Amino acid sequence: MIKKILIANRGEIALRIIRACREMGIASVAVYSQADAESMHVKLADEAYCVGKPRSNESYLKIDQIIAAAEVAGVDAIHPGYGFLAENAHFNEVCRSSGFEFIGPSPQAMEKLGDKNTARKMAIANDVPVVPGSAGLIDDDADAIKTAAEIGYPVLIKATAGGGGKGMRVAENEAALLTALTQARTEAEAAFGNGGCYLERYIGSPRHIEVQVIADTHGNVCHLFERDCSVQRRHQKLIEEAPSPSLPADRREAICEAAVRMIRGADYSNAATVEFIVDADNNFYFIEVNARIQVEHPVSEMITGIDLIKEQIRVAAGEKLSFTQSEVHCAGVSIECRINAENPEKNFQPNPGKIEKIFAPGGLGVRFDSHVYAGYTVPAYYDSMVGKLIVHRPTREEAIATMRRALKELQVEGISTTVSFHDQVLQHREFVEGRHDTKFVEREFMP
Amino acid sequence: MIKKILIANRGEIALRIIRACREMGIASVAVYSQADAESMHVKLADEAYCVGKPRSNESYLKIDQIIAAAEVAGVDAIHPGYGFLAENAHFNEVCRSSGFEFIGPSPQAMEKLGDKNTARKMAIANDVPVVPGSAGLIDDDADAIKTAAEIGYPVLIKATAGGGGKGMRVAENEAALLTALTQARTEAEAAFGNGGCYLERYIGSPRHIEVQVIADTHGNVCHLFERDCSVQRRHQKLIEEAPSPSLPADRREAICEAAVRMIRGADYSNAATVEFIVDADNNFYFIEVNARIQVEHPVSEMITGIDLIKEQIRVAAGEKLSFTQSEVHCAGVSIECRINAENPEKNFQPNPGKIEKIFAPGGLGVRFDSHVYAGYTVPAYYDSMVGKLIVHRPTREEAIATMRRALKELQVEGISTTVSFHDQVLQHREFVEGRHDTKFVEREFMP
Repeated sequence: MIKKILIANRGEIALRIIRACREMGIASVAVYSQADAESMHVKLADEAYCVGKPRSNESYLKIDQIIAAAEVAGVDAIHPGYGFLAENAHFNEVCRSSGFEFIGPSPQAMEKLGDKNTARKMAIANDVPVVPGSAGLIDDDADAIKTAAEIGYPVLIKATAGGGGKGMRVAENEAALLTALTQARTEAEAAFGNGGCYLERYIGSPRHIEVQVIADTHGNVCHLFERDCSVQRRHQKLIEEAPSPSLPADRREAICEAAVRMIRGADYSNAATVEFIVDADNNFYFIEVNARIQVEHPVSEMITGIDLIKEQIRVAAGEKLSFTQSEVHCAGVSIECRINAENPEKNFQPNPGKIEKIFAPGGLGVRFDSHVYAGYTVPAYYDSMVGKLIVHRPTREEAIATMRRALKELQVEGISTTVSFHDQVLQHREFVEGRHDTKFVEREFMP
Repeated sequence: MIKKILIANRGEIALRIIRACREMGIASVAVYSQADAESMHVKLADEAYCVGKPRSNESYLKIDQIIAAAEVAGVDAIHPGYGFLAENAHFNEVCRSSGFEFIGPSPQAMEKLGDKNTARKMAIANDVPVVPGSAGLIDDDADAIKTAAEIGYPVLIKATAGGGGKGMRVAENEAALLTALTQARTEAEAAFGNGGCYLERYIGSPRHIEVQVIADTHGNVCHLFERDCSVQRRHQKLIEEAPSPSLPADRREAICEAAVRMIRGADYSNAATVEFIVDADNNFYFIEVNARIQVEHPVSEMITGIDLIKEQIRVAAGEKLSFTQSEVHCAGVSIECRINAENPEKNFQPNPGKIEKIFAPGGLGVRFDSHVYAGYTVPAYYDSMVGKLIVHRPTREEAIATMRRALKELQVEGISTTVSFHDQVLQHREFVEGRHDTKFVEREFMP
């Protein structure tokens, strides 16, 4: 039985976990840095302990301080949220060896999935597609031609020592391959002193689609359908939605089943996200597993009605999932916009400061998860997210309309936010038609 | 086509209607009194017109001013919300004769249903049960015995000139009837100079259950299931929920069908609520029809996913309902708490004033419909409701838990609210078990 939980995090996710605890009759313990004393997660927790100075490595990342707070408070378990120590297998191990349940997978599963090469091998072993590529470095032209033919064109030539796009070339066919390979080798040799190259299938206009999975310790592994997170800026997700607007039903079934195979094969319990890139022909390729709850989990909650944080707690307590796969239904469409304290006019420069006024949107189909309020100062030390605006309506068209009116309502004074940027994206034809890929934001909105 | 709507109301319902307009691409026009210039409904509307002084009869009830604003703004239609002019058939008529669609029923239907005696006759004509009673005054003891036997015991003796409980007696059987009748006659004669009495079936522990209905002008009449509004204080609803926790499935079907018969028989279009009292044996009796949208409409929206304000607008524009009865499903449980600026410690005395701080609850399954914000002053001139806290979860147990944690989050500083009172009700065993009736609050919470 878990009766008291320490939340090793801050901001909206700490508040989200407090909400689940309170509804389950579990006491919640917040930790906070000196910069976060006025945060709503501190005010709403049943107890709160200051664990250090504003900078993360002096507070939210200080394992000894967090464990000390857990000991003083006498908790049964620790929820790491996302970010900070959430995927730190050492912290996971220390929690357990200190006598606290860690609300997440085992340290072993976390460690294995945290290593990209190991995770890729596990994917292959579990019949989960990965981006096709050469087994190792390319020997010579003949090897390149043979391997590229196996992978299929277009292929991407990547320097093994590469970075920043250097030593990277796309080849559409065999003729282009040999020229490109020579160029890449020369460039890599000059830049890194290492001309070694390997080949991968080139995915031109990928969408980022991920599957929410949750597993208990009794062998039950269920998915909660997929999320499309293709609206990104420099690999930062900005807008997420469930289900994907572009995935045909048979591919949805296939990607969800692949994600479940992956997690089942990893001997994993608790929540996980299996991330894929999906090409224009709806082929999907495994990227990585996030062994934690994610920022964008609410869209999966909205379409299924399942409270993921509660399920995480149940699973950590050794209980079975409260549902079976056949009881998980996808109803309607949910979209989430991450509201960041950033100035879209100034290249999304962070814009912390005091919130003078704020009006939280309401009405049918709107959820606003945030720890901020009028009078609260957004500290400069952490990520700039001040809230998640989430909608849920029967159709995507309605969901977009509801999001647009909710964005209009979300009036924040004192700091700049990304509200106006989201409104532009939501009106863009590519987004409205669900044709956008991960390059969409940079192509259409970056000067 | 309706392209622009004036909202002849204030506060949260005005904001609710603005939200629907915005999602439909319809321009919204607010009106406001001098006391409401800072209200969110004024800030969020596309246009706003001051229609007079703070007191309602000098602003929100001034038909000429509202019509003048509609003319200046060039709207196509007027939505009256609830309260104020919402059930004023004359206003309805003036709107139409001034060339504005009135978003509600015809003045004729409104007038007929507004007269209780006419409405009772319409109910009987449409085979909708009413509280059984004598056709007129009781002649003598023999008539009383015969009529009471027809009605069934216990019976309520009511003085025709009565009021304030005077001349009112309950009789459990024939022996008690004659004594009680004599007492009632004597008392009524002394108090009102008129000893005339009539009989009605006595409903001991009634629940208030109402059915949400909406009809278009093409002959489609649909219900959105029932709401239980038994948590009342002096006939003021405080907590509403859908579906009713106490009504068996067959009775639910019967009461919803009766409501549809009533509205169909009234040649009615737009939203209506058919109100019933329900006795301990789940017999239901018609009370009245509310020919408008109601405060508690969100709980019906939550369980069905249908946006009632949008449907009202569609119907007023001559369109068909966007759904058929067979497409309306009841999913989960929704509860609404009316958050009033009142002091529960001081006999619910209104407590207007400036809101210094407010945190709007969020998270899974929570909706907060409110026009207030930190820095806003609740004026003393209108009803004391500052927001509606609504939850929607798969089960009633979860809905209660979510409501309790959301109430805990709803931290308001500067004014007293009914938040703590709601929390007490939600913990009370009678409420938790769904056994409460309309006397519950006065019995358990009033000193």
